[in-house]
Amino acid sequence: MKMKWEENVRRVVPYVPGEQPEGSRLVKLNTNECPYPASPRVVEALRAVEADSLRLYPDPETGELRQVLADRYRVKKEQVFVGVGSDDVLANAFLAFFNSEKPLLFPDITYSFYDVWAELFGINYERVPLNDELRIVAEDYRRENGGIIFPNPNAPTGIFEELSVVREILEANRDVVVIVDEAYVDFGGVSALPLLEEYDNLLVVQTFSKSRAMAGARIGFAIGNEKLIGYLNDVKFSFNSYTMSRPAIAMGVACVKDDAYFREIVEKVVNTRERTKAELRKLGFSFPDSRANFLFATHERIPAKELFEACRAEQIYVRYFAKERIDNYLRISIGTDEEMDILLDFLREYVANH
Amino acid sequence: MKMKWEENVRRVVPYVPGEQPEGSRLVKLNTNECPYPASPRVVEALRAVEADSLRLYPDPETGELRQVLADRYRVKKEQVFVGVGSDDVLANAFLAFFNSEKPLLFPDITYSFYDVWAELFGINYERVPLNDELRIVAEDYRRENGGIIFPNPNAPTGIFEELSVVREILEANRDVVVIVDEAYVDFGGVSALPLLEEYDNLLVVQTFSKSRAMAGARIGFAIGNEKLIGYLNDVKFSFNSYTMSRPAIAMGVACVKDDAYFREIVEKVVNTRERTKAELRKLGFSFPDSRANFLFATHERIPAKELFEACRAEQIYVRYFAKERIDNYLRISIGTDEEMDILLDFLREYVANH
Repeated sequence: MKMKWEENVRRVVPYVPGEQPEGSRLVKLNTNECPYPASPRVVEALRAVEADSLRLYPDPETGELRQVLADRYRVKKEQVFVGVGSDDVLANAFLAFFNSEKPLLFPDITYSFYDVWAELFGINYERVPLNDELRIVAEDYRRENGGIIFPNPNAPTGIFEELSVVREILEANRDVVVIVDEAYVDFGGVSALPLLEEYDNLLVVQTFSKSRAMAGARIGFAIGNEKLIGYLNDVKFSFNSYTMSRPAIAMGVACVKDDAYFREIVEKVVNTRERTKAELRKLGFSFPDSRANFLFATHERIPAKELFEACRAEQIYVRYFAKERIDNYLRISIGTDEEMDILLDFLREYVANH
Repeated sequence: MKMKWEENVRRVVPYVPGEQPEGSRLVKLNTNECPYPASPRVVEALRAVEADSLRLYPDPETGELRQVLADRYRVKKEQVFVGVGSDDVLANAFLAFFNSEKPLLFPDITYSFYDVWAELFGINYERVPLNDELRIVAEDYRRENGGIIFPNPNAPTGIFEELSVVREILEANRDVVVIVDEAYVDFGGVSALPLLEEYDNLLVVQTFSKSRAMAGARIGFAIGNEKLIGYLNDVKFSFNSYTMSRPAIAMGVACVKDDAYFREIVEKVVNTRERTKAELRKLGFSFPDSRANFLFATHERIPAKELFEACRAEQIYVRYFAKERIDNYLRISIGTDEEMDILLDFLREYVANH
């Protein structure tokens, strides 16, 4: 029976995150986490959180974390916004910047949270199809719109578009906010951050969940011009003053300070990715040239869904999207070399027998 | 110069949290934090977070924390929602439940975030005046509305309304969601949780930031019937799948399990509050009979603003609201006995000399 109060309930179809199975035997290559632990400095910072400080509210401005990020990316602290993972940053940005009657534009194949946020906040949107090579075409974004967002590298394709493409989109859209979602940029892309000097309508969003191996700590950030960040802060402070816990701030600061470790684990993931590409090709897989920490692979003969289920039965978790245009692809996160060998051994045998 | 993209920016006036001054000499009685540290079990849980787990996403369902809360409050896990402090819980609830054209109702003197959320989400609202004794009058909520929210005890008055008042409001408003914000209930109020069996439109919200001494960990929760919590989850999962970090979940679980410590620190705060009431009365202060961890005090002769500034000059931070009807009150959080003595000594001298 429907209750009367249900009439005023906001009906939404939420984003479905990848499975988070727990267990030690399984090979988890389904949510693009980093296979290496967070920096030892991060763990030290967590252990060092003062017991008595937990009773006190954290700094609502997260000043220290914003300052180390500002130093690291050579911008001012006032240009940095911090949130509970990049999803929190993006949700706040949608709420702050996409209030036009004209449609928000994003690729048809992309991070599947974009349309969820648009639906949640009642934002008009249109999907712009990727071309046949699954590439973003800049001139497709030369049309009336109320804002633009795309990931670079794109997800789940892994394809990185050169900054000339980003610049072309910005150049044609100076009157709306353009968000470049760089969740995966550290694995071989080039950040759009240098374009901030020219474009005051650009917001660059990054995360600690992938290249910084801290998905469990929930930290993301955005960098833009001061005015843009000011508006984003106004919305954030109208939603929740204190989003970042004391342990999260401490861990985030320690992480950014340990740049050597960050570079080391990113390099390892990139090396494993390139080796995995070569091995998968030998088995009849093809994929766009990923610059992310995952591959988006399709097999010449065996349907992706079948492979997904066969892997899962072996406790090897990859991601499959039952969605038009991409329902014959597997998104495979790059794990350790050992994890990739387990996957490759299994696929080698499976492909040989089917 | 105004930029073109600014046209579509959501303009809001954010909530202003209490100052968070840092320093060891100061007496901080301005944001209703607990003066006692979090449970030693909480600190142990923080120290015990596995280093390697930080790279992995947390459980998006926060199942373990919801289960211990369900056990503690004798409800089902499916009746519990967890968020990044009760502000996050309330923001999600506003977004989920208050979508009527009819006005949301809340007291004119109350938590000053309610109108900020209403403005942020474009919710029509009306403030219902407290009576001359600063009490909530149930029959004032017998009017057309799209939802109701009030704290109990109310903030910043500290006044607790008996459950008969809550019941009367619920009884007259079965067709809308009624939120009882119980941030301060543990300090001597009575929770509306038992009313859940009768009212499927009731949502009870509580926090770990006050009585559980964990403001720095960012944990709040809501309890309601399964269907209500289901809708709240849909909105939450449309905003950010992973709001609770691994350390936060671990600390929250440990806190709920250590109920003896929780009772102990609450009792200490209540004892200090009652002693402070007696001392303040001797100095010419009056106040509603607070059942929260703060007093809302006005002096018979000296303006509150003057006292606020005099305290501040002595590094004693209390809260002052330059707002109609309450601009001659100080909100004084209950600290340790030592902290209250510093405040009382200062006020004793100040009152004698002015």
